[in-house]
Amino acid sequence: MAGCRGSVCYCCRWCCCCGERESRTPEELTILGETQEEEDEILPRKDYESLDYDRCINDPYLEVLETMDNKKGRRYEAVKWMVVFAIGVCTGLVGLFVDFFVRLFTQLKFGVVQSSPLAVEECSQKGCLALSLLELLGFNLTFVFLASLLVLIEPVAAGSGIPEIKCYLNGVKVPGIVRLRTLLCKVFGVLFSVAGGLFVGKEGPMIHSGAVVGAGLPQFQSISLRKIQFNFPYFRSDRDKRDFVSAGAAAGVAAAFGAPIGGTLFSLEEGSSFWNQGLTWKVLFCSMSATFTLNFFRSGIQFGSWGSFQLPGLLNFGEFKCSDSDKKCHLWTAMDLGFFVVMGVIGGLLGATFNCLNKRLAKYRMRNVHPKPKLVRVLESLLVSLVTTVVVFVASMVLGECRQMSSASQISNGSFQLQITSEDVNSSIKTFFCPNDTYNDMATLFFNPQESAILQLFHQDGTFSPVTLALFFVLYFLLACWTYGISVPSGLFVPSLLCGAAFGRLVANVLKSYIGLGHIYSGTFALIGAAAFLGGVVRMTISLTVILIESTNEITYGLPIMITLMVAKWTGDFFNKGIYDIHVGLRGVPLLEWETEVEMDKLRASDIMEPNLTYVYPHTRIQSLVSILRTTVHHAFPVVTENRGNEKEFMKGNQLISNNIKFKSASQPRLSYAEMAEDYPRYPDIHDLDLTLLNPRMIVDVTPYMNPSPFTVSPNTHVSQVFNLFRTMGLRHLPVVNAVGEIVGIITRHNLTYEFLHSRLRQHYQTL
Amino acid sequence: MAGCRGSVCYCCRWCCCCGERESRTPEELTILGETQEEEDEILPRKDYESLDYDRCINDPYLEVLETMDNKKGRRYEAVKWMVVFAIGVCTGLVGLFVDFFVRLFTQLKFGVVQSSPLAVEECSQKGCLALSLLELLGFNLTFVFLASLLVLIEPVAAGSGIPEIKCYLNGVKVPGIVRLRTLLCKVFGVLFSVAGGLFVGKEGPMIHSGAVVGAGLPQFQSISLRKIQFNFPYFRSDRDKRDFVSAGAAAGVAAAFGAPIGGTLFSLEEGSSFWNQGLTWKVLFCSMSATFTLNFFRSGIQFGSWGSFQLPGLLNFGEFKCSDSDKKCHLWTAMDLGFFVVMGVIGGLLGATFNCLNKRLAKYRMRNVHPKPKLVRVLESLLVSLVTTVVVFVASMVLGECRQMSSASQISNGSFQLQITSEDVNSSIKTFFCPNDTYNDMATLFFNPQESAILQLFHQDGTFSPVTLALFFVLYFLLACWTYGISVPSGLFVPSLLCGAAFGRLVANVLKSYIGLGHIYSGTFALIGAAAFLGGVVRMTISLTVILIESTNEITYGLPIMITLMVAKWTGDFFNKGIYDIHVGLRGVPLLEWETEVEMDKLRASDIMEPNLTYVYPHTRIQSLVSILRTTVHHAFPVVTENRGNEKEFMKGNQLISNNIKFKSASQPRLSYAEMAEDYPRYPDIHDLDLTLLNPRMIVDVTPYMNPSPFTVSPNTHVSQVFNLFRTMGLRHLPVVNAVGEIVGIITRHNLTYEFLHSRLRQHYQTL
Repeated sequence: MAGCRGSVCYCCRWCCCCGERESRTPEELTILGETQEEEDEILPRKDYESLDYDRCINDPYLEVLETMDNKKGRRYEAVKWMVVFAIGVCTGLVGLFVDFFVRLFTQLKFGVVQSSPLAVEECSQKGCLALSLLELLGFNLTFVFLASLLVLIEPVAAGSGIPEIKCYLNGVKVPGIVRLRTLLCKVFGVLFSVAGGLFVGKEGPMIHSGAVVGAGLPQFQSISLRKIQFNFPYFRSDRDKRDFVSAGAAAGVAAAFGAPIGGTLFSLEEGSSFWNQGLTWKVLFCSMSATFTLNFFRSGIQFGSWGSFQLPGLLNFGEFKCSDSDKKCHLWTAMDLGFFVVMGVIGGLLGATFNCLNKRLAKYRMRNVHPKPKLVRVLESLLVSLVTTVVVFVASMVLGECRQMSSASQISNGSFQLQITSEDVNSSIKTFFCPNDTYNDMATLFFNPQESAILQLFHQDGTFSPVTLALFFVLYFLLACWTYGISVPSGLFVPSLLCGAAFGRLVANVLKSYIGLGHIYSGTFALIGAAAFLGGVVRMTISLTVILIESTNEITYGLPIMITLMVAKWTGDFFNKGIYDIHVGLRGVPLLEWETEVEMDKLRASDIMEPNLTYVYPHTRIQSLVSILRTTVHHAFPVVTENRGNEKEFMKGNQLISNNIKFKSASQPRLSYAEMAEDYPRYPDIHDLDLTLLNPRMIVDVTPYMNPSPFTVSPNTHVSQVFNLFRTMGLRHLPVVNAVGEIVGIITRHNLTYEFLHSRLRQHYQTL
Repeated sequence: MAGCRGSVCYCCRWCCCCGERESRTPEELTILGETQEEEDEILPRKDYESLDYDRCINDPYLEVLETMDNKKGRRYEAVKWMVVFAIGVCTGLVGLFVDFFVRLFTQLKFGVVQSSPLAVEECSQKGCLALSLLELLGFNLTFVFLASLLVLIEPVAAGSGIPEIKCYLNGVKVPGIVRLRTLLCKVFGVLFSVAGGLFVGKEGPMIHSGAVVGAGLPQFQSISLRKIQFNFPYFRSDRDKRDFVSAGAAAGVAAAFGAPIGGTLFSLEEGSSFWNQGLTWKVLFCSMSATFTLNFFRSGIQFGSWGSFQLPGLLNFGEFKCSDSDKKCHLWTAMDLGFFVVMGVIGGLLGATFNCLNKRLAKYRMRNVHPKPKLVRVLESLLVSLVTTVVVFVASMVLGECRQMSSASQISNGSFQLQITSEDVNSSIKTFFCPNDTYNDMATLFFNPQESAILQLFHQDGTFSPVTLALFFVLYFLLACWTYGISVPSGLFVPSLLCGAAFGRLVANVLKSYIGLGHIYSGTFALIGAAAFLGGVVRMTISLTVILIESTNEITYGLPIMITLMVAKWTGDFFNKGIYDIHVGLRGVPLLEWETEVEMDKLRASDIMEPNLTYVYPHTRIQSLVSILRTTVHHAFPVVTENRGNEKEFMKGNQLISNNIKFKSASQPRLSYAEMAEDYPRYPDIHDLDLTLLNPRMIVDVTPYMNPSPFTVSPNTHVSQVFNLFRTMGLRHLPVVNAVGEIVGIITRHNLTYEFLHSRLRQHYQTL
């Protein structure tokens, strides 16, 4: 399966080949069982490494274990709780920071646009609208330029960050995604991209930020800032780090949506490791800490009521409630469920279309934008910003409808409780380009922060004409689709919700006005539309359901939201994958699915394993160790005795390297656990090793560092069992051992990806 | 570790011994490393079998697999979704049934007590109170007698059922707990025990009922009613059954509390298998179905508004809300968190006391009540009912305080929305024994359904005097403690909540009146008190948090509830286990913990495995197979080749038996998967086997039925890794295989229980 394509360098597991080849010949493809069409797909790249969730209980670790007792265990546990609390609080503060500055910048911008001499309302009378537009453009382009510059510094900071976190929690090491520099670029970048009026959300980046906080904080050191380094030698393993990243990501969700339970489930859904009771409880605590830290400070800063916890998450849907006077009003009835199912189907179709378009665009970008100088990316961002601003401005001017400011458009639903003050909502109705006592419905949607526009769609009665909603939906859909993927930090949740809410509101309007179903509650339909579209785009299941339920703070919406999301997901899955999975796939990350398909059980471990192994003997010369490490990309080798068979144990190469360097320089008999963990997570590169410091003919005993009892499978184990074991235990490599204890092959993440299994299944059918 | 105590029959793994022995001698105990004190503890019994979550991919299953393709897989998946939906709906209907009749019986009873010629209010003037008491006693004793009789029919129906479901989801087969007869006895029993005025809840039994529905429905047959049998050969394995039981239990929680997310987490917390994305999604759907089925019918029946979904779960806490006029009112502030922590500590202490008392009582019952004729159990139930009724009556008469019916005690908080009509609440204020315009606060707590009393404590302002609350708490605490464990179906959630709410309300009263903290919101304190006490008793973590948040329908209570539950759990765990774990322990069920303690990693697989194995050869005479099966209680044997070593495979005995019987009678060359699964879950007993039907000297080939590739571990694997593998994969037996592929021992659930590991650790320390 390994091959080279274009100028990308593909690595097979045991050797690296780089070169220029245009494409495989049709014959080659037939041999591989692939068709030309599938060749378009990007295959998982082999140079990604797995994280290791399994503990390597080797001799140094055993020494640590010997000194461990339950008391120390409890102390360690207590430290974990404190760290988790700190992660939650810090993530909450990051959220607060982002929210505060986005709010500040947006207010600044709209303030100037609305009240300066060049304000839209004045200019529409004075005829200086072109200058107003230029003023707005000036703001937006500057902000987007800054966001784009930050992404140039750290390219991993682009996009929503959820695909990256998905990969990390799935067990793939993606370089740079949990570094402090990434955090800074992401946080400042998202400030500017949101304030710059792009159709992007801040929720995805906040989840990413939470994950970085989770990864970095417990290390008490930073690779980006080498000076920050305390003597805190805990949690130096992939296992601990992944736990904290789970907690951090959950805290990010919790802060973004005010949804601590949804956050916990998000971590579980993406992390998908075994259900670890203690960890889940900590993750929930971390999420709660984040939510209520944010809550505490926002209540204090915005309302001056320090000590109360009135404000929910950054994204809040307000309270859906029938007015007390209308006894016959129901938020939804059994009959509405039928409409919700249809809306789910449409949402799924729209989402699939969105994903399909975005995928083509992303591929186009990979071919045409990424190879060019980095400046081109900045220019693309600026172009998007320019078009977006012009569209927003022109659409409001030309396409908006002036509607009567009736009492019905006031807060008629009793919908806004304490948390969303009525001024907020009233002030978000825009009268641009409209005579007195009327307002511009298109401008109300476009010239507001996206969150306010969502609230308008959810809670204002009779405000928007169907034509406006349809036009808004189309314009927003296309621009959001174009935007996701440019080089700025950009979330996808809020744009999808807004787009979907417009669609849902449109459905409600049509049903009310043209079909004559007067009883329906428009807000519910807008919410369901939002859920349907978002579900169709991201295809998340349980966590999205819970996040939306928590955001509405209304358990009775559980059933309609769940049914809509289910239908939207199933409809969308019929056509393509979720947007995050598409972007993960485009990067060639070998993500493991939830489970294998039924047919895969026709394969066994021996069909998919890598049979050509590089062995290491228990006593090996430094010379040969170094040459093995330099010529292979993976970092785990079976340690076998001379007659090859009676030992089937493992060691990790990367640890070995740093160890041996120290071993030589310190002339110690053996390394301690602390010394081994010291360089985590960046061990020195083997290629940087100065061999002159070592005696290359010296013989090293590798047995202390190997894992004497790894999980193993027999060659005729079925693929579903292998997959379950590998995924559930979070393994990095799984040796295949025959009936007499000889190691006959090895299975890594790459042998379990969907693409690899499928190619093997085709081979299997051909040999039948 | 195997031994015989009292008249209980203990089975070691390889042989069974029954007999009368009083106790072990101190010498024996010292040898076993036990102290006299620990002898009091009930050790896990060895006769419980594990469920098998791992698939046994043997030849018949392979045949099924060969015919499988992705299309069939999808159809199978679709059937699963439909079944899960059906489970949800049925569980909802069961909940509806229980709720409807409990309501009916209670109304009947209180109606008579309040309005008959012997009504309390009239008699307190006429002086016929003794007759009123007798009337009440007549009702209560009859109901409790009926409940008790039903438990005599099916003893497993006693208690809350949560311990049994815990065991099942943990992977232990407890006979009879998921049978139709159990369901019927439980459902009707709980009707009568709740209506009979006992201090028991209906929530636990509802969870049990949901689990039975989940286990039974997909089988389309019943052991209790043999005539109900359709030709529906799906889902005939422990693996599928356990999935459906998870879904059913979650649906039970969802129906009982209106908490679909909490229900899902309950299943996960107790099931603790690996996080299976597809399953979790189905479980949530099942929970939603149950919640909204119940919701739909209750809205229709009670409010006549068919098609709306206004009513949440059976247990609902009403809406906590500050009145609109009081701008300074906050449900809770940062300062209150300190009080909540203290309340958590007290709740933990009270819960630990409750558990300790109840454990002693349960042990007393095991020694003195259970060996006696069954009638004694009925008498005990009647005695409890008698005492409860008299206490309720006398306390209301003597200890209640007559308080002014002020406007403040009316619905001042704006607390009761649609779902709890104001008549409900007003009518639940009782004026017994009190002059006009006053009411009796003790009677208001005692002479109401427990749910109404909880609502009173949560939402009525200034209604209860501190003395009344304190007395109520003490009486209720003692009676509830005595009640849990008698032979009636009896939940523990509602009594704990009510008890805790009284405690919380007491704290609020004291703080308000004596400390002068006027700003606090009493309802929040009552809620936190309820959470603290419940948490101290049951020690559940994440699922309880979510259930309570969903019951309040108020996400802002997340932090205080979580902190309180955490503190209560930690405090309680300092003294003893949760009540469910205590009762599981008393039954000697070998439950597996969440994870092993840190110190356990000093042990390895070879230290804990069972080294004496019974082997089977690939070709064995029927005679020897039968004798092996008759003399061993476990049902899995390594199949080894003659030179003992090169094969390490397994077969399951119980399947083997039924197979062989058929094998002989049908003279088929080999059995199909459908034939093997036909008798699931009750295979014929080996002792019932009529050997004359078989040719005992005939040789059977067992290889088609064995599992050719089980998970294995090496002898020097550490205990935590063994434990993780076993628990996560839901195994029944884990062979230990040495470096040359020979099987050297076997690990089952019994080798991984807390008690067994501890005894081995003591041995380990002694040999050091």
